[in-house]
Amino acid sequence: MPSSRSQVPPFAVMEVLDAVQRRRDAGRPVFSLCAGEPGGGEPAAVRERAAALLAGGAPLGYTPALGLPALRRAIAGHYARWYGVAVDPERVAVTTGSSGAFVLAFLAAFAPGDRVALARPGYPAYRNILRALGCEVVELPAGPDERYQPTPALLDAAVATGGPLRGVVVASPANPTGSMVDGAELDALGAWCADHGATLVSDEIYHGITAGTIEARSAWERDDRAIVVSSFSKYWGMTGWRLGWALLPETLVGAVDALAGNLALCPPTLPQLAALEAFSPAAYAEQDRAAERYRELRGLLLDRLPALGWGATAPADGAFYLYAEIGERLDARGLDDSVAWCAALLEETGVALTPGSDFDAVHGRRWVRLSYAAEEAILREGLDRIAAWG
Amino acid sequence: MPSSRSQVPPFAVMEVLDAVQRRRDAGRPVFSLCAGEPGGGEPAAVRERAAALLAGGAPLGYTPALGLPALRRAIAGHYARWYGVAVDPERVAVTTGSSGAFVLAFLAAFAPGDRVALARPGYPAYRNILRALGCEVVELPAGPDERYQPTPALLDAAVATGGPLRGVVVASPANPTGSMVDGAELDALGAWCADHGATLVSDEIYHGITAGTIEARSAWERDDRAIVVSSFSKYWGMTGWRLGWALLPETLVGAVDALAGNLALCPPTLPQLAALEAFSPAAYAEQDRAAERYRELRGLLLDRLPALGWGATAPADGAFYLYAEIGERLDARGLDDSVAWCAALLEETGVALTPGSDFDAVHGRRWVRLSYAAEEAILREGLDRIAAWG
Repeated sequence: MPSSRSQVPPFAVMEVLDAVQRRRDAGRPVFSLCAGEPGGGEPAAVRERAAALLAGGAPLGYTPALGLPALRRAIAGHYARWYGVAVDPERVAVTTGSSGAFVLAFLAAFAPGDRVALARPGYPAYRNILRALGCEVVELPAGPDERYQPTPALLDAAVATGGPLRGVVVASPANPTGSMVDGAELDALGAWCADHGATLVSDEIYHGITAGTIEARSAWERDDRAIVVSSFSKYWGMTGWRLGWALLPETLVGAVDALAGNLALCPPTLPQLAALEAFSPAAYAEQDRAAERYRELRGLLLDRLPALGWGATAPADGAFYLYAEIGERLDARGLDDSVAWCAALLEETGVALTPGSDFDAVHGRRWVRLSYAAEEAILREGLDRIAAWG
Repeated sequence: MPSSRSQVPPFAVMEVLDAVQRRRDAGRPVFSLCAGEPGGGEPAAVRERAAALLAGGAPLGYTPALGLPALRRAIAGHYARWYGVAVDPERVAVTTGSSGAFVLAFLAAFAPGDRVALARPGYPAYRNILRALGCEVVELPAGPDERYQPTPALLDAAVATGGPLRGVVVASPANPTGSMVDGAELDALGAWCADHGATLVSDEIYHGITAGTIEARSAWERDDRAIVVSSFSKYWGMTGWRLGWALLPETLVGAVDALAGNLALCPPTLPQLAALEAFSPAAYAEQDRAAERYRELRGLLLDRLPALGWGATAPADGAFYLYAEIGERLDARGLDDSVAWCAALLEETGVALTPGSDFDAVHGRRWVRLSYAAEEAILREGLDRIAAWG
C-alpha cells in the first residue's frame, strides 16, 4: 500500500484536463483558459543554441550537482541586472525546474514536524511537497484585506494558535491569485522571519510578468538569508525544459549541494547550456514583448469582467491569472462547487477554467482561476462564451 | 542551519573530481577511470530527433506528470522485447532520471521510520535519499560469499537483529561492484519480500551492459509487485538528458502520479520526445555495440589485473566497474585509507580512481572502484601507470 505521506490529494484540474483531452480527441472545440504555462515559448536564441549543440555533437553528460558554473554566474548576473543585487554565483543552485528547488530547499531547511506557513489560497505543490516531507503546513487565511498574501499579523496569529514557525513561503506574483506584495510588505515578512527564527522562502518564478502597478522585488534585496526560488519556465517560457534555480542562504549551500547530488545528480544538461543564451539583451527584449502581451490580455480580460457576473476577484497584479469568486453563478445553477460548475461550463461551451478547490480547500469551491496565457482570439471567444452561458 | 535530515555525507569522489579539474586546468594529463557515465553518448537517432524537434519549432511545454503516453507505451514495449514481459503502459512512470524514480518510489512506498535494506557496498544515493526521507537504512554486509548482493539469509539476519523490513533494494548489475544476481537469486529475493510484506526495489539501470556470464533479469519477470527502476542514462548513454522510469506496483501508481505532479511537474519534454527513437532496431544495435566495447575493455582490464598487485575483486559481471581491495598497496605506502591513496595516485600519475569509502563506510577505505567506461588508450595507459606506481 502507498505510504501515508504519499496521500496527495488529486487535483481537480486534472479532471478538467482529461475532459479537455476527450473533447479534443472527439474533434470538439476547446477554449482553454486553464493553462499554467506561457504559450510563447523560449527565446529564439535558446532554441537555436540547443539545436546547434545537438548538431555539433556536444557531449551531454552530467554537470556538477548545482549546475554549470557559467550558468550559475549568468543567473547571478541576472540579479544585478534586474534588482541591483550582487549575488555570489556559489550561492546559486541550478535545479530541475523550480519544483526541484523547492524539494531540495525544503529538505535542507526544514526538519520533519517543522511548521511552515503559506497563504491560502495558494499553489498546492508547496503544501503537498511540505507534507510529503513531513512538515506541518500552516495555512494562513489570506483574504482581500491581506491582498491574498501572508502578513506579519497572520503570522503572529499562526504562532499564537499553533506555536513557532520555522518557515514562511511567499509567492509574488502568486498562483492562483496573481497578487503581489510590494517592497515594504516583502521587507516586513523578511523582518518577521528574522525576528522569529524562520526562513523566508520567496517564490519569484513569475517575476518579469507583471501588470506594472507593483514592482517585483527579490527577497535578496533586503536579506540573503532568504531562500529565493525562480525558474526559466515562466518569463522565459521554458516550462518543458525543466530548469530553475534557488538562491541559498550561506548555511544551506553545502546541504543543498549534497542533497542535489543524491536526489537529482544534476539538472538537465542541454537546457543548462542553452539557457546561457537567455540573458542576452535580445532575449530579454523578446521575453519582455511576451510579458507585454500578457498585460494586453489582462486589460482585455478586465474590460470584459463585468459582463461575466462574477463576484470578488483577487488583484491580478502579475503572472497571468485571475482568481474570482463565482458564488452567484453557482447559486444560479443550483451548484455548490466550482468543480461541477467548471465541468458544466466545459461540457456546454468548451471553455476550460480551473476550479478553486485545488488552491483553497476551505473557500475554493466558490472560486475559479482563469489563465489568460492564451491566444487573444481564444481569450475573447472564451469570455464571450462564459458571459453568454452565465 | 540546515535540517538534520539534510546532513548527507560529502562524497570522497568529489575531492577526486575537484583535483582532476585542477590538473586539467593546469594542463596536466589525467587518465580518468572514475566516471560513472558511458562516454559513447546517445543513439544518433535520438540526437537527430531532438535537433529536428527544435528546428521544427515543436512546443516544449509540460507533459503529463507520468510522461508522454507514447513514451510509456514504448518503454512497456521494451520489456516485451528484452524480457518477454507484458507491461501495462499505465504502470510505467517516466521520471527525471532514475534519481527522480527513486525519490518518488521511496516516498510512495515507505513511511518515515520504515526499515529498508540494501547491500553494503552499494550506491550511496540509495541510502542518502532514504535517510533524507526519514527511512531507516539497514545495510546488509554483503561480501564475497554473497557476491556482494542481498540474500535471503542476510535479510533474515537483519530482521532478527532489528525488526521487520518494509523494503529491499537490489541492484544488478550493481554499482560499485558490477556484481549481478542471477534469475534464481532475484526470484529468491522477490519471494522473501512477498513472504515478509516488503517491497522489492530492483535497480536495473545497468541492464544491457553485462559481460554475458549472468543474464540480466527484470524483477517483473516474476512479480509485478516489485518496483523496477531504470533509465536512459547507461545503456542508451543519455546521462545528461535526465530521463528514467519506474515500473510500479498497481497500488502505487496513483500515489506516484500525484507525487510526481507536485514534486517534479513532469520529466523534461525534449528528452521524452527524442527518446521515442531509442527503441528502433538501429538504436538497439548501436547501443549493443557500445556494450560490446565495454566487454572488450573489461577483458583488457582483467588481463592486466594481476600486474596491479591488488587483492580481492568483486565479480565484474556487468556495468563498467571493477571494485577491488587494495590493502596491500595501502600498507606498502603506509596509508590506511584509499582516499589518501587515490589522492597520491592522481597527484603522482594522473590516474583518477574512486575511493571505496563512498560505497562502504565500514570496509571501503581499503577498496577502490575503477570505471572502465573510458577510451581504450586511456584505460591502457592508466593501468600501466597504476602498475608502475605500485
